[in-house]
This record gives sequence, structure tokens and C-alpha cells, in this order.
Amino acid sequence: MSKYVIGLDYGTLSGRAVIIDVSNGDELAEAVYDYGNAVIDEKLPGTDICLEPDWALQDPADYLAVLRSTIPAVLEKSNISANDVIGLGIDFTACTMIPTKNDGTPLCFLEEWKDNPHAWVKLWKHHAAQPEANKINEIAEKNDYEFLSRYGGKISSEWFFPKALQIINEAPEVYEAAERLMEAADWVIWQLTGDERRNACTAGYKAMWSKREGYPPKEYFKLLDPRMENIVEEKMSSDIYPIGSKAGVLTPETAKMIGLQQGTAVAVASVDAHVAVPAATVTGTGQMVIIMGTSNCHMICGTEEKLVPGICGYVEDGILPGLIGYEAGQSCVGDHFMWFVENCVPSSYQEAAKEAKQSIHEYLTEKASQLKPGQSGLIALDWWNGNRSVLVDVDLTGLIVGMTLATQPEEIYRALLEATAYGTRMIIETFENENVPVNDIVAAGGLPGRNPFLMQIYADVTGREIKVIRTTQSGAVGSGIMGAVAAGSTSGGYDTIKAASDAMAGLRDVVYKPNKKAKLVYDALYKEYSLLHDYFGRGENDVMKRLKKISTEAK
Amino acid sequence: MSKYVIGLDYGTLSGRAVIIDVSNGDELAEAVYDYGNAVIDEKLPGTDICLEPDWALQDPADYLAVLRSTIPAVLEKSNISANDVIGLGIDFTACTMIPTKNDGTPLCFLEEWKDNPHAWVKLWKHHAAQPEANKINEIAEKNDYEFLSRYGGKISSEWFFPKALQIINEAPEVYEAAERLMEAADWVIWQLTGDERRNACTAGYKAMWSKREGYPPKEYFKLLDPRMENIVEEKMSSDIYPIGSKAGVLTPETAKMIGLQQGTAVAVASVDAHVAVPAATVTGTGQMVIIMGTSNCHMICGTEEKLVPGICGYVEDGILPGLIGYEAGQSCVGDHFMWFVENCVPSSYQEAAKEAKQSIHEYLTEKASQLKPGQSGLIALDWWNGNRSVLVDVDLTGLIVGMTLATQPEEIYRALLEATAYGTRMIIETFENENVPVNDIVAAGGLPGRNPFLMQIYADVTGREIKVIRTTQSGAVGSGIMGAVAAGSTSGGYDTIKAASDAMAGLRDVVYKPNKKAKLVYDALYKEYSLLHDYFGRGENDVMKRLKKISTEAK
Repeated sequence: MSKYVIGLDYGTLSGRAVIIDVSNGDELAEAVYDYGNAVIDEKLPGTDICLEPDWALQDPADYLAVLRSTIPAVLEKSNISANDVIGLGIDFTACTMIPTKNDGTPLCFLEEWKDNPHAWVKLWKHHAAQPEANKINEIAEKNDYEFLSRYGGKISSEWFFPKALQIINEAPEVYEAAERLMEAADWVIWQLTGDERRNACTAGYKAMWSKREGYPPKEYFKLLDPRMENIVEEKMSSDIYPIGSKAGVLTPETAKMIGLQQGTAVAVASVDAHVAVPAATVTGTGQMVIIMGTSNCHMICGTEEKLVPGICGYVEDGILPGLIGYEAGQSCVGDHFMWFVENCVPSSYQEAAKEAKQSIHEYLTEKASQLKPGQSGLIALDWWNGNRSVLVDVDLTGLIVGMTLATQPEEIYRALLEATAYGTRMIIETFENENVPVNDIVAAGGLPGRNPFLMQIYADVTGREIKVIRTTQSGAVGSGIMGAVAAGSTSGGYDTIKAASDAMAGLRDVVYKPNKKAKLVYDALYKEYSLLHDYFGRGENDVMKRLKKISTEAK
Repeated sequence: MSKYVIGLDYGTLSGRAVIIDVSNGDELAEAVYDYGNAVIDEKLPGTDICLEPDWALQDPADYLAVLRSTIPAVLEKSNISANDVIGLGIDFTACTMIPTKNDGTPLCFLEEWKDNPHAWVKLWKHHAAQPEANKINEIAEKNDYEFLSRYGGKISSEWFFPKALQIINEAPEVYEAAERLMEAADWVIWQLTGDERRNACTAGYKAMWSKREGYPPKEYFKLLDPRMENIVEEKMSSDIYPIGSKAGVLTPETAKMIGLQQGTAVAVASVDAHVAVPAATVTGTGQMVIIMGTSNCHMICGTEEKLVPGICGYVEDGILPGLIGYEAGQSCVGDHFMWFVENCVPSSYQEAAKEAKQSIHEYLTEKASQLKPGQSGLIALDWWNGNRSVLVDVDLTGLIVGMTLATQPEEIYRALLEATAYGTRMIIETFENENVPVNDIVAAGGLPGRNPFLMQIYADVTGREIKVIRTTQSGAVGSGIMGAVAAGSTSGGYDTIKAASDAMAGLRDVVYKPNKKAKLVYDALYKEYSLLHDYFGRGENDVMKRLKKISTEAK
């Protein structure tokens, strides 16, 4: 008799459920619910209350609607009985923060608070807390707090405490009314199980928590704002649960609402990129998982805590229990190629692609693949959206060098693809320099399946074999794996993430192997990339920052 | 009774005659003859003899056809009698070299030689003598000959002696048969007057001649090749005539052939960019003339010989008699903008331009002109075709920095326009650093009339007033001025170039004045340009050259 789990993947615009066979990882049905209020960045729903620039909110009612809509849908589509569903796991965007009462009611559900923007969910890409992030960084640096070094020396405005501090600064009454400040991921788990169980992944990667040191100390928060001194004790919790733990079981009420059995096991929540690791068959050290889409996320586990310079974060138990999970990233990958296609491709190419019945990406890829490595004479720095790792500097910008009057669009396109591969190699070498080995790579996300040409470039540039994850839903499958572990072997699940991943995760047949000749050319080009990377990125010539300043002043 | 001159402008694909009123410079008629054999770069005309890559030849019969066709045409169109035409001047592409017999017959006219490519005219853009140019530069440098310093330390494969040495190397029999080696400019003058009269402009700028030192010494030529030792005495001449001199008068036979009176004064030949100076009203020091088209030529006169580093050349009597004429250049201007339009403008822009009934240049210019200086956050190095001045390095390539995901095509377009203006400012400052003052600028050529937006950028970036020449035919008008001076006042012409220019040359009403606010921003941007210019151009990071090498090896 087969058993099943449901993995729920909460994205920026929708939530998706996938029902998965526990024995082999087969994805039997999926369902998607588009959030009714999507990303709220102009007006509060149903009001004329306008939001400031850089705001991005969400409506927690949408998160509940995902549960009510998609879980019954996948049961129905797959014709599987709720009796055979043994567990549930979710992943979420992060930091996506929600202020609630002690009973879990979001402030924005209450008449009293619903017209105050700060009562709503602050989505990960809410960027209005930059002044607060600056203050958090400056005060930590000035007072020699070391926790920042776990995050490459700087935290982002997207993270938990900048968002909290913005509420204090702009709406102290909301801050006071907020009895709990929750990651939306943990809030959904609370709704499912009736228990508040915070996960190590978002706590570690987005809220400066570490297993060994906990949150930053009270005195630090007091320096930020006296009202913040006891934020952890008052509105958060120091009980943090490692990834792979059981958060609890479905309450009778929730079980009824979503059409599952009460008592079904629920795993602690996580983040899509992090659960992608076991979904990509990786359950130990030495193998990097790169989630490639609009941006790249690089996930690798190690056994020792290493201060790898310029890495987004490392969290014990944050990816796999018992290991140090390192996360690095490139903020401009698919977005980079899209920018090029939208802004720099001449109409003659658009027409030729149309005639060849190809998308413009396919047409450019075909032309670019006819070039040899190095042939274009071009090299680019992949900083169109700043540098997330290893320089951790949003004010860096793009560069391309080597153009002649004979330079063709497909040469520039290829140079941009290659630039993102050099950026990944820089991240890998940074890890290896600190004795976090990266032996080979598993690629996940939207790009690897669609773009074999890009994958071969990554193999040639990094000099490492690249395997490709089987599923296109790495978040949902990873969450399903966590659900199977929460259920445990006695319920037909697994007792370890390794056992669950071994059974449920898989790779495609294709393996991209480095071409020796191409690798040699790319070694030479990577040397040039590194030289430019350090010259423009490490302060020798801060022209990019000065140009940004001139630009801001000109507007 | 009005008097007239004819200015003949020999270009790369055609020759043009303009008949001009001596009293006021009015252009009364013009006629163009397209060379029948245009640029010969595949097969010798009427044969199956293939040319090597980088070859570019012409047929001297086309030059004679220009005379026979265009001069009668302008007389007829303007209804002016040949009796009232007092003088003739010509300008030509250079170095465009022709091997002839002692009587002026081109070798390629002779049955014996016509199947040998080396017997034909080597056009300025014949680039196959690069090995010879390298040898010429190396041997001069190794033996501490100082004449190279007059040309920024290096001469180009386009010049006279590389072309001559290529004949010696590849076709010694042609070299031996060539009793005269002539600039095509001087050869046409010879055909008109029956006398060989070589001009100081092409001798100085293209054949390493100087008024004070003459040609390089015999020993130097002997080092290049023993057969070359006596090239000047045997096949050239040391009688060099300053610009503005009279070369002679039309012979009865030629006069008859072209429909003018015998005895009509003929000026010594020159080069289009150089005769553009008096055509732009400039007859002294301190005013720079920039001929702006596919590339930029910067012409300025001084009173003293200065070794201005990285300047293409300086020649006494080469632009104006009695003054040192300096020439500098940028190899990629209109070509740069054209490259961008052809390779980097998305179809949405093409369609919007079509809808607005604008050319794509007009459309981009309109959008770019709405940006403020510095707003784009971009800066480019204008080296898509190498750097002619002040770095004198064909192996440099283009660079652009500052792109973000929000960067728009018109911002890149504007950055490329600005880059050429920074390049011009760099040239101006290089002159001024050596005490060759550049007080203001007169712009000539195709771009200034078409592109007021570009002219304003040049004024803002250079901080100098820019005036614009009246004529669109600066070569022909400049040649006409030389014809009027050759005729002299007793024939109804003028005795000095200044007098002729005062009467015959003119400016448009518009003057582009630097905007103080824009200038301040551009000062900051130019500082960044200079920093990148020196870093990439002066050896600190030779990435451009290494990329070129990698590219060549990859192909």
C-alpha cells in the first residue's frame, strides 16, 4: 500500500501543492493558487491608502486560501485518499514577516489595524527598510559585534530585523500591538498544527540566529532602539527547530478545512532554495546545489563553521540537521539574459528568430553556441544587479569590455552567460579557499532544463561535473521530503533526510562534463575576470559607486 | 566680372567637383563621378587574379575620368565660361600610392604589368603592409631614430613606406620597374600640369618627411632593405611644396581634355581633412578644426614644433604655410553610433521610430536628449576601433561600465556619444599640456549639421565654444581656396590663404556654448573616463590585448 506526502511551495505570486509518492518521489498531481492580492505595492486592498515606493506587502488570507484550495485539488486530481497522506511540508519566501496577536491572528485581519500598512505582511522584496538595515549594520560594526561576519559583513534590508525596526520607527503602535512577529513560513505551520514552531533556516539565514550563539544580545537591540531591547523574549522565541524536525500534527479543525486527516505529521517550514538540496539528492558535504533562475542560489554543506568571506550566510541545521549550511548567491542571472533580450537585440534578429520559429533566446543560443570559447574577445562582470557574494555590494554595476565594430549580439549574449559562470566559479573558489570543498554540482531551478548550452558553459568554466535535478518543482519535492521525515518510518515515511532523499529525489540522465580544451581557454578568461572583479569590486577603482552617485544627483 | 575656381575632392568611392565664386565662396554647381572600379579588393579588373585579404587597390583611369566628367559638368550646370575659371585645386585620400614610369604612365596601364596587383594603386585602406609597418617601426625604434616621435612613436600600415616595402618584398620586379612612386594626389597634379610637384601635406603626414630634416636618412632605408637605400633619390623627390603653392598651369592637352583654358593655375594637392581648415575659416593658431564623420580628425596649427605625445603627426607647411600643422584623430565616431544602431537597438524602438516617422538615430537622439548629463550612470571608452590618439594603439577595444537591469538603450547610445566627446577632450588637453593652445573649435564634416545634440555634448564636455562650418563640402571648398591662391590676385584670386579664406569660407549662424551645469557634471565624468583610459590604455591592465590574443587563437 503506497503512502504519500504533500509538499507546499509558497512563492511570490502563488502557492503550489504537489502530492508525491513516498516510495519513489513520483509527482502524481499538482495544483496552483494565485494569490488574490498578489504583491501589494500600490494601495492597501479595498482602500485608497497608498504605499510608499519600495513597499511590498501581502495578505495572509491568501496563504490560507492556498491550503484550502490546492490540497483538496491534488487529492482529487490524483485520486488519492487522505488516509494515505502521511505528512506535509512547506517552504516559503523569506524573510516574509507577519505581525500577529498571541493567538496567531494577523493584525491586518483586525478592524482596528487593517488600515495600517505596517499591520500587513512585509514580503521578502519589501525594500523600504534600507535605512534600518544601514543602522543595523553600522551599529553592529561600530560595536564590534561579530555576528555580522556570518553574513559576509552586512545584512540586507530584506531581512527580519530591518523590517521590525521599520515598524518601530514608523508605526510604534503596531509594534506594540504585535504580540508575535513571525516568519510567514512559521505562521502557516502554526495555523496547521496549533503550535508556534520556528525553523532554523529562516531564523539563521534571515534573523541573525545561530545555534551556538542564539540571537544577537539584548544590549545590541537596545542600541538599535530601546523599545527593541526585548524583542526576542517578547515577540519571538529562542526555541528554534532544525530542518527535518516535526512541527506537530494537523489539528482537527485545520484537517477538516484542508481535507486531510487530523494527526497528519507536519514538518517545520523552510525556504525553497534550502529544501531544494535534498530534492537534488544532496544530503551531505562536498556537493553544491545551485538553484538557477532569475538569480542563482548556491547551497553547500560543511562540517565545520568557517568564516567564508562574502558569503550570504551559514547556519547550523539550516539546510541539513547536524551540518553547517552555507548559502551564497548571484543576484542577476536569468534576469541578466532577459535584460539583454529586451534591450539589446536588434529587430533583424527578432525577425530571423520568428522566421526560424524559435524564441529569441533559442535563436541567440544557437548562434552563440557556434562561437568558440574566447572567440568573441569579450568579458563581462555580472553585476547588473549588484554583487550578492563574494563582494556583498549592491552598488556595484555591470561592465563589458572587448567590443569592436565587428562585435555581434550573440557574442555579447554569450559573454553575459559566461560572466554568470565566472561569478559562480568565484563563489566556489571562495568556499574552497576556506576548506569548504565543492567537488561537483547539482543544478536545480528553471534554467538547467531549458538551457543545456548554459550548463555546458558552467561545467567548462568551473571545471566540475554538473548533474541536473529530476524534478522541476524542487521546492515542493524538498518540502515533501521534509513531510515524509516528519511522519517517520513508523507511519510509512523515513527517519532521516538521507533515507527520504535517497528514495524520493532523483537526477536526470544527462551529466555535463568539463571539456578540457574549453576549460583551458576559460581558465585564461577567468583570470581576466578575477582581475577586473578585484579592481572594480575591492575598492581600487570605485567608479561604479561614483557613477551611481552622479546618477542619483542628476535625477 | 566674377571669377571662379574649381575644387576637386577625390574620395574613396568617387570624385567630386564644385565650382565656387571666388568673391564669396558660393558653391554654384557640383558634379560627382563614381569610380568605375571603385575599391578593388577581390579580383584585378577584367581578370581572375584574386587579391589577398586586407588588400585594397584602385584604378588610376578612374581618377582621370573624374577630371573628364565632372569639370565639364559643373561648367555646364553653372553656365560659367571656362574663361572665368582662374584656378583649380584638389584634395585626395592618402596615402594612396601609385607606381609609374618616368613619364607618369601608371605601371598598371602597361600590358607588361597590368596583371600584377603591385602595379596598381594601393588605396589608403590597403592594410596588407602591416608586417612592413612593424619592421619600419621596430628598426627606427631600435636604432633610436627620432623621426617616429613626430608621429606618436609609431606609423601605420596605411602609410607610404610600408606600401613601398611591401612591393619590394613581394614584387621586386615591380619595384624596379617603378621609376616613380607617387602619392595619387601628386600624380593627378602631374597629369594636369605636366610637372611632378609633391606636396608637403602627404609627404609630411604619410611619408615621414619634415621641412627641417627631410626624409629619413639613407642608412635607415638601407636597414629596412638594401634595395630601398636610395628610394628617395631614385623614385621620389626631395622637392616638396608647401600647401598653398602653385604647382603649375594646365597644359594645352589637359585643358582641352577637361574643358578649361590652358594656363589655368593649379595648386599643389592636399588631403581633405587638411584643406578643411581654411574652408572652416581657420587660418592661424588656437582654433581647432574637427572633421566629424565615421571618424574624427582634429587639426590645429601652432607656431613651434612640439613633441605632443600620441598625436598622429605634425608637419610644417602641412596645413598652412609657415605654421606647424598637427593632426590627431579618433578612429570610431559615426561608425560607433552606427554599430550601436545596427547591433543593439531592440525592435520595439525600431517600431516606435517608424510610427513617429523618425529615423532610428532621430528617435534615439530624442530619447537620449531627455536624459540629464550623468543620469544614466554609464561611461564608455570609445575604442571600438582602437585608439588613434593619444594612445596610438589599434589593439585597444571598447568598454562600457555602469549597467543595471534598468539601463535603457538610449542611455547606452548617449554614453557612446559622450565617450567620443571625452576622447576629443583628451586630445585637446594633450595639446594644451604641450603648450599648443586650443581656444575654440570649428566642426566640419557630415555629423555637425545633422546632430545638434552631439555638438552640444561636445561643447559641454570640452568646455569650449563650437562653431560649425558653412559648407558641407569642406574638401572641395578648401581645394577651391588653394586654387584661388595658386591663381593669385593678379588673376582675380588671392595672394594668401588667409585672404582667400576670409572671402570664401564661412560659418553657420549657430554656436554651441558650454552649459555651465552640464560642464560640471561632465568634469566629474571625464575624471572617471581618464582613470579608465589610463588603466586600460597605458599598460596597467592589458586585458584588451590579451582578450584579442585569446580571440585570435580561438578562431
